[in-house]
Amino acid sequence: MTVLTPAQQFLINGESGGSISPLDRGFAYGDGVFRTLRVDAGMPDAWDLHYNKLANDCRRLGISCPAANLLLTDIRRVFLPTETAVAKIVITRGIGVRGYAINPSTESTRVVIKTPLPDYPELNFVKGVKLHLCDLRLACQPLLAGIKHLNRLENIMARMEWNDPKIVDGLLLDEKGNVIECTMSNLFARFKNELVTPDLTQCGVEGITRQRILQASAQLNLLARVVDITLPQLLLADEIIICNSLFGAWQVKEVGGIFWEEQSLAMQFREILQAKHASN
Amino acid sequence: MTVLTPAQQFLINGESGGSISPLDRGFAYGDGVFRTLRVDAGMPDAWDLHYNKLANDCRRLGISCPAANLLLTDIRRVFLPTETAVAKIVITRGIGVRGYAINPSTESTRVVIKTPLPDYPELNFVKGVKLHLCDLRLACQPLLAGIKHLNRLENIMARMEWNDPKIVDGLLLDEKGNVIECTMSNLFARFKNELVTPDLTQCGVEGITRQRILQASAQLNLLARVVDITLPQLLLADEIIICNSLFGAWQVKEVGGIFWEEQSLAMQFREILQAKHASN
Repeated sequence: MTVLTPAQQFLINGESGGSISPLDRGFAYGDGVFRTLRVDAGMPDAWDLHYNKLANDCRRLGISCPAANLLLTDIRRVFLPTETAVAKIVITRGIGVRGYAINPSTESTRVVIKTPLPDYPELNFVKGVKLHLCDLRLACQPLLAGIKHLNRLENIMARMEWNDPKIVDGLLLDEKGNVIECTMSNLFARFKNELVTPDLTQCGVEGITRQRILQASAQLNLLARVVDITLPQLLLADEIIICNSLFGAWQVKEVGGIFWEEQSLAMQFREILQAKHASN
Repeated sequence: MTVLTPAQQFLINGESGGSISPLDRGFAYGDGVFRTLRVDAGMPDAWDLHYNKLANDCRRLGISCPAANLLLTDIRRVFLPTETAVAKIVITRGIGVRGYAINPSTESTRVVIKTPLPDYPELNFVKGVKLHLCDLRLACQPLLAGIKHLNRLENIMARMEWNDPKIVDGLLLDEKGNVIECTMSNLFARFKNELVTPDLTQCGVEGITRQRILQASAQLNLLARVVDITLPQLLLADEIIICNSLFGAWQVKEVGGIFWEEQSLAMQFREILQAKHASN
């Protein structure tokens, strides 16, 4: 097995030095899905959950998902056994002629990209983070909701709303005024012993860390629920945390001028997430 | 100036044999816009309108649009002076690091692709076409509405709804029940001497042929209006036509079991569009 040099940071269909055709439907239409995950000492974190999510997202779009072993082999070739970094996996519907119609015999394109782990400020983990309240309202499209697909212009337009480096993410509501997620993370709010997270059947991305926190909540004696929640309701929460596969969970200390005291929910979930990782 | 051989059917940033980086934001997020246009005997049809639309769409997404001359030079290199075919122009925000945040100094990527003119059945022009009534409802996102951007999963999901080759396009409504467009064309309905087309400020793509037909309607003594129109209202129209830059305009003869007699509005507009082209 060839391990790639640091300069060769991606594989396309298992080949180094490859590139994407401008006729690839991922490029033409955003016709594909992706995953972003931590690779710790060469091993992808929570791989089974990531692969299941990738396969499910592909299924919903009618894209054929490569076998897990193919992707694991790619990851082993791109990441040194000692390396901790970020893997991004992209699966597209493959190369097509012009037009939206699908040729069912098209082979999907698979890409594995290595990027450095973001240099998160230690304070995000210790003190919590500040969120921007986005003006952009997410559009409701149940056929695409939950999927981590390549149509991400809404996230980009939302991310353009702030430049302050002290703001780590933006809180997104849908057109009805329900809180949904942040641009790069999911969200949980604790009300006494209830832990709620927004319903994502109309819009938003169902991240696998959200799934892991839902499952782990009983360990902290919290009752987890998926709900519709408006912004005024959210702002009454005892604690708010955001989560994704790279940073785990962060405490939210400020949203649009409303502040929360230092609390420990995010840290407790990070410990559970890390313990699970170690035992896998 | 090098004219490319038939095998070299695209230029990327003016270079033949180029390819797209998997780090290009067009591939990563569908972060870009495109145009599809006819090139007749080496000359792009309605170029000023196409370029203005491309530049406007880029501006709305905050993408820097290449100069018209650069694109015209690309087109002259890809198309022989005698050639009639389709040009697809794609402009993306360029190569980026992972994450939705934008680096304002990123240079955009420009792609010019040549594909053959579709082999449209003559009957589409003579007798009209049949539309599928799509189940998918377009999501409303005013920040992206009207733009021909690279986030086209809704069109793809809608196009997956039918396989009958006799159906040429699918009629799309929005989540409120308003008629918006078809998957690859805009739509007009005539009620007596009024010619109406759906408002596209919430969703849909504002094609330049729609714009040309709106401007040309007075020549046919029609009063053009942009309106909200429901499906039951549409089905009462005296005539319906669909339009895009490749086929011009086609008469609609059937939508979901409702039929229209042979009429001539589409043909009249095709004549005006072609005459304009000849006089340009």
